[in-house]
Amino acid sequence: MEGIKSYISENKSRLLSELFDLLRIPSISSIESHKPDMYKAADMWVNILKDAGADKADIYETAGNPIVFAQKIINPLLPTVLVYAHMDVMPVDPIELWDSPPFEPIIKDGRIYARGADDDKGQGFMHAKAFEFMVKTNQLPCNVKFLIEGEEEIGSVNLPQFCEENKEMLKSDVILVSDTSMIAPGIPSITTGLRGLAYWQVEVTGPNRDLHSGLFGGAVGNPINVLAKMIAQMTDEDGKITVPGFYDDVIEVDAEERKRMSQAPFDEERYKRAIGVEELAGEKGFATTERTGIRPSFDVCGIWGGYTGEGAKTVLPSKAFAKISSRLVPNQDHHKIADLFKAHFESIAPKSVQVKVDILHGGQGYVCPIDLPEYKAAEMAIDKVYSRKPVPVRSGGSIPIISTFEEILGVKSILLGFGLEADAIHSPNENFPLEQFFTGIETIPYFYKNYAELKK
Amino acid sequence: MEGIKSYISENKSRLLSELFDLLRIPSISSIESHKPDMYKAADMWVNILKDAGADKADIYETAGNPIVFAQKIINPLLPTVLVYAHMDVMPVDPIELWDSPPFEPIIKDGRIYARGADDDKGQGFMHAKAFEFMVKTNQLPCNVKFLIEGEEEIGSVNLPQFCEENKEMLKSDVILVSDTSMIAPGIPSITTGLRGLAYWQVEVTGPNRDLHSGLFGGAVGNPINVLAKMIAQMTDEDGKITVPGFYDDVIEVDAEERKRMSQAPFDEERYKRAIGVEELAGEKGFATTERTGIRPSFDVCGIWGGYTGEGAKTVLPSKAFAKISSRLVPNQDHHKIADLFKAHFESIAPKSVQVKVDILHGGQGYVCPIDLPEYKAAEMAIDKVYSRKPVPVRSGGSIPIISTFEEILGVKSILLGFGLEADAIHSPNENFPLEQFFTGIETIPYFYKNYAELKK
Repeated sequence: MEGIKSYISENKSRLLSELFDLLRIPSISSIESHKPDMYKAADMWVNILKDAGADKADIYETAGNPIVFAQKIINPLLPTVLVYAHMDVMPVDPIELWDSPPFEPIIKDGRIYARGADDDKGQGFMHAKAFEFMVKTNQLPCNVKFLIEGEEEIGSVNLPQFCEENKEMLKSDVILVSDTSMIAPGIPSITTGLRGLAYWQVEVTGPNRDLHSGLFGGAVGNPINVLAKMIAQMTDEDGKITVPGFYDDVIEVDAEERKRMSQAPFDEERYKRAIGVEELAGEKGFATTERTGIRPSFDVCGIWGGYTGEGAKTVLPSKAFAKISSRLVPNQDHHKIADLFKAHFESIAPKSVQVKVDILHGGQGYVCPIDLPEYKAAEMAIDKVYSRKPVPVRSGGSIPIISTFEEILGVKSILLGFGLEADAIHSPNENFPLEQFFTGIETIPYFYKNYAELKK
Repeated sequence: MEGIKSYISENKSRLLSELFDLLRIPSISSIESHKPDMYKAADMWVNILKDAGADKADIYETAGNPIVFAQKIINPLLPTVLVYAHMDVMPVDPIELWDSPPFEPIIKDGRIYARGADDDKGQGFMHAKAFEFMVKTNQLPCNVKFLIEGEEEIGSVNLPQFCEENKEMLKSDVILVSDTSMIAPGIPSITTGLRGLAYWQVEVTGPNRDLHSGLFGGAVGNPINVLAKMIAQMTDEDGKITVPGFYDDVIEVDAEERKRMSQAPFDEERYKRAIGVEELAGEKGFATTERTGIRPSFDVCGIWGGYTGEGAKTVLPSKAFAKISSRLVPNQDHHKIADLFKAHFESIAPKSVQVKVDILHGGQGYVCPIDLPEYKAAEMAIDKVYSRKPVPVRSGGSIPIISTFEEILGVKSILLGFGLEADAIHSPNENFPLEQFFTGIETIPYFYKNYAELKK
C-alpha cells in the first residue's frame, strides 16, 4: 500500500475538518426529537462516500432511522468487503460532566473530544478515508460496499429487515467493522467475541398517587422499597443471576481456553485505578476479564422514582422505574432471556404493587474463529503497521447486529477496532486519540491487500 | 359565639379571595430559589393579622426563612392561646400530574385546588379569620398570639432557636394548631399523637465515571445494584426495620389501648380502594392504623441514578442516590435514630463502592393526654358544631416542631385539624373542601370560649 503514510500526513487537516463536520451533528438515536439530525448525518455520509470514490451512495428509508448504502464494484469476480459502521450516537447526559460541549469537537492533549469521536463516527470515518486513499491511488484490490446505519445504539431495530430485503445488494465475503477497542495503545487486539444483550424497563406502581409518607408510611407498599427488594433478589451473594433458567444455554469455556485468556496482558491494579474503585466485584470463581468476556452480567442502567429534587420531601411515591440490562454470552438467546426475566420479575412482585416489564431491545452474542482467512488478513495488517501480532480478545460489549449479519447474510465480521479504554465511549468527555485515528486509516488498506491475496 | 355562622356566610367571597391571594404565592421552602416568595408570604401574613385585629404583627429574620409573629393582648391576667401555622408549602413535582396549575387556586366540585390549600395555608388562614370574627364582634375571651413559620416542610430548622430566644414573647398556656386531618367528613377527630421523623440522603459511588455496561458489566460494582441491595436489607420479611437498636426506645402500646384504637371507625376496603392498591403491606402483627399510628416506618421517598431518559442507554453508572425517611414513635429520639441508621448503612457497604449518608432533618414524636383542659376545650368545640364528640387519634404524620414546643416552651399543643384524607396534601391536586374550611372557622371560636371558661 504505497504512499498511505504520506497521504495521511499531507491531508491531515482536511481529514480532521471533515470528521469534525460529522461530529457536529447531534445524531442521538434514542431521542425522537433528534430524528432530523439523523438525516443530516445520512446526507453527509452519502457525500463523504461519493467524494471518496463510491460508484453509488444512497439513503434508504426504514421504519425508523435511515440507512446509507454505497459501493464501488471494480470487478464482480473479485471478493467484496462490506464495511459496516453507524452514524448514530449515545445521549450526552449527564451533560454537566462534559468539559466541553459534546457536539463542538475540539482537540486537546492529542485527542479529539466529542460525542461519537470514537463510537462510531471517528472509527467509521477511518474506513471512508482508507477507501478514498485506495481509490485515488488506484490500489483498491477488491470490491467495497458501505453500510452505515442509524440505530446501533438502540439495538439496530430495523437493520435485520433491511438485510433480509436487500441480501443481493449486501452480498459480500466479509464484513469489516471498527466499533471496538484495542487492549492498550501499544498492544493491538482484534475482538473475536461479543456479548449479547437484553434490555428491559420495569415500572412498579404502588398507590394511585404520591402519598404523605407520614399518614400512610408503614401501612402501604412503597414502590421504591419494593423495586429495591426485587432488584436485590436478581443476584445472589456469589454474584450469580437468580432468574431461573438464565444460565441454561451458557457454554462453559474450558480450562484450556481460560488459561490462554489469562495470559493476555491485564493489569488489575491499573484497571482499578483507572476507574477509581478500591475493589472490583462480580461473579465468584471468575477473573475480571472472564467476568466481562465469557460470563453474562446484570446491571441496572438507570433508576428513578419519588422526589429527586433539592431538600427533603416526605413522600410515599406512586411509582418507581428502572432500566435494566443483561449482557449475554454466545449461545444465550436474547429473546429467551428477555422472556425469562420478564416472567420471573413479574412473578416475584408482592401484591401490594403492580409490576410491568417492557422488553426494550436485545442482540445475540458472536464468536469469530481465529483461523479464518478474514481473521488472518486483519492479523497481518496489524502486524505490518504495529510490528506486533494482535491479541484475539473476547469483548464484554455487544454489537447486536454482528450476529444478525451472520444469521441473515451468512458472513463473518472482523472487528478491527482502534478505540482505547480511556476513550470514555457512552460517557461524558468521549474522545479518540489522533494517533489511533490516523493509525487506523493506515492499517485498513493492508487488510484489503492481504484479504484479496489470501482469497486469490 | 354569637353570629359566627352569619359572619361566615356574609363574608364568604371575601374570605376566599383573601385566601386565594395567599395560595398564589409559590412559597416552597425546600427550593432555595423560592426564598423571595417566602418573604411575599410573610408580608401577606402580617397584613392579614393586622387587618384581623392584631395589636402588632412583625416579620422576624432567622438564619433561614422569616417568621411572622403577631399578638393581641386584651388582659395579661387572662389565659393566652398561641396559634401556630406555617406559610411554606411542599414542592409541586410531578407537575404534569396536576389538573390545574398548583399556584392558580380554583374551586371545583366544592373544593379549593392549590398547593397549600389544606397544608397549611388553608388551615392556617381559618385561624386568622376566626380571630377576625372574635375581634370584630368583641367576643375575644382571652389573649391570642400567632406564630407563622416558613420552614415546616423542611423540618422547622430555625424555629427551635427562635423559641429559645423568644420564650417571653411566645409565652402562652396552650398552642393551637390546625395542620392535621379528621378521620372523615362526618367523623371529627383530634390528633393526640404524632410520629417523629428522621430523613437521610444517601449517595453510593462506584466507578469515577459512567462506564460502558458491556465493556465493564459483570466486573465492576454497579452503584444502583448495590444501593438496591442495601435498601433491601433495611427491612426484613416481616416488615421490621433491621437497623441494630432501632426499636430499643419504642414503647410497646399495651393490649388495652390497642383494643380501644381498634374500635375507631376504619374501613380497610375503602382505604385500599381510595389509594388504588390490591393489598396493604407493613409490619407483621400490627393492624393498618397501628402501623401508621404506633409503629415506626421506613420509606424511600426518592431514588435516582444512571440513565433515566427515553429509550435504552447501556451504562454502568458512577453514582446512585436515595432520599430515605423513617417515621418514629414517641420516645424514639430522632438524633439517635439518625446516627444509628447512618452508622449501619455505611457499615454494610461493600468495598466496591463508597457510601455517604447525610442527615437532612428530623423531629421528635408527640403525645397529648385527653384529660387536659386544653383537650376538653377542643372536644367541646367540636361537639358544639358537629353534635358529636371527636375521636382521639394517633396520626402517622410528623410535625417536628410540636414536641419542640413542649420541650422549649413547656406548653402542650392541641391538634385541631380540619383536613381530610382525600385532600392529597404533599401530592398533585392538593385540595381543601370548602365545607371543611368554613366549618373550621366556625369551630375555632368555641375553643377560645371553652378554654377561657375552663381556665377561670
